[in-house]
Amino acid sequence: MTTMLDSDATTLSIDDATADLLFREARTVKRFTDEEVTDEHIAAAYDLMRWGPSAMNISPLRYLVVRGSEAKDRLNAYTMEGNHAGIQAAPVTLVLAADVDFHVHMDRLTPHAPGVGAHFASQPELSESMGRMNAALQAGYFITALRAAGLQVGPMGIADSAALDADLLAGTAWKSLFLVNVGHAVADAEGATRPRAARLEAHEVSRVL
Amino acid sequence: MTTMLDSDATTLSIDDATADLLFREARTVKRFTDEEVTDEHIAAAYDLMRWGPSAMNISPLRYLVVRGSEAKDRLNAYTMEGNHAGIQAAPVTLVLAADVDFHVHMDRLTPHAPGVGAHFASQPELSESMGRMNAALQAGYFITALRAAGLQVGPMGIADSAALDADLLAGTAWKSLFLVNVGHAVADAEGATRPRAARLEAHEVSRVL
Repeated sequence: MTTMLDSDATTLSIDDATADLLFREARTVKRFTDEEVTDEHIAAAYDLMRWGPSAMNISPLRYLVVRGSEAKDRLNAYTMEGNHAGIQAAPVTLVLAADVDFHVHMDRLTPHAPGVGAHFASQPELSESMGRMNAALQAGYFITALRAAGLQVGPMGIADSAALDADLLAGTAWKSLFLVNVGHAVADAEGATRPRAARLEAHEVSRVL
Repeated sequence: MTTMLDSDATTLSIDDATADLLFREARTVKRFTDEEVTDEHIAAAYDLMRWGPSAMNISPLRYLVVRGSEAKDRLNAYTMEGNHAGIQAAPVTLVLAADVDFHVHMDRLTPHAPGVGAHFASQPELSESMGRMNAALQAGYFITALRAAGLQVGPMGIADSAALDADLLAGTAWKSLFLVNVGHAVADAEGATRPRAARLEAHEVSRVL
């Protein structure tokens, strides 16, 4: 039976508190407490998000963990000046990246299409566009999963991705996408977030064929 | 206090059933029941995912709803033959796309940076790369939100995105990314899913600077 659905309450399979935590009340955080964020805590979020789908299961998302004043200074050589203080102050900053050599793992990740890794190895442009799109898709899972792991995030752009890659990602085929500061938000009275910005309505972003 | 975290149980802020629903047990679905999926049900998922962050809140994700045999035939002119039957059989197929003219909404979406829309209007290459990356990021939120709304998904690639855009998305600046079949899975004994493919471990996808 299909009925017209007129409220979230009738349609969601997660409870209201979870919908708020992951989506409705989740905010981009500008200021974090000093509480440490361990590699294990980040890995717990990764262990959730990795099950999300990507094209042929290529799973190209990678992340560089940047923690501590010296490493943050190295990172800030490639970020916008207005973001330097926020990056320095965050407990940890992740550089999310696409591994455009994802084909090296395809024998293991894509057993239903034997030999397809060699196809991608011979097509670097296709590998780059597929790698970037699917890593960005997985970044959406990762941000949601970090929140599911009780962390708050503040994503930020990179001023010069090519230069960052050549330095901090040297020796890999990783292409940086954007940064995510991760930690626990200070109280909002202390400037954790900006006023909530608007979003588009469903009828503005959708069409029916 | 920070302690070493050695299991999900100590780190997650969502319950195990929700972690399974959204991530750990969620599967790409190949076969759906005949149960209808309404536009309102999809909009309920959109109403969750739209709160996720994108660069400067540009929110470029758009979706085309394709339902019914005739519309599916039009769509299948641009998909791989091996996917035609699955697309026809799904209750609804969404074409996820990036609106590279996202700048037209920036006065409303980005009030903290007045006039920045004009900057993007004058830089079509930047708009296309930012639009595509951020729409793919939002697609990650959308897939998670569809699952949160009790739906199952089967993402699929597009064989010829440029041709699809010129036909089905004519009159817009939307650039198609990929498809998502949406519905309710048949029982697994009836072929809902393939065997679960492997994923990479956290230590394989991360480095510490």
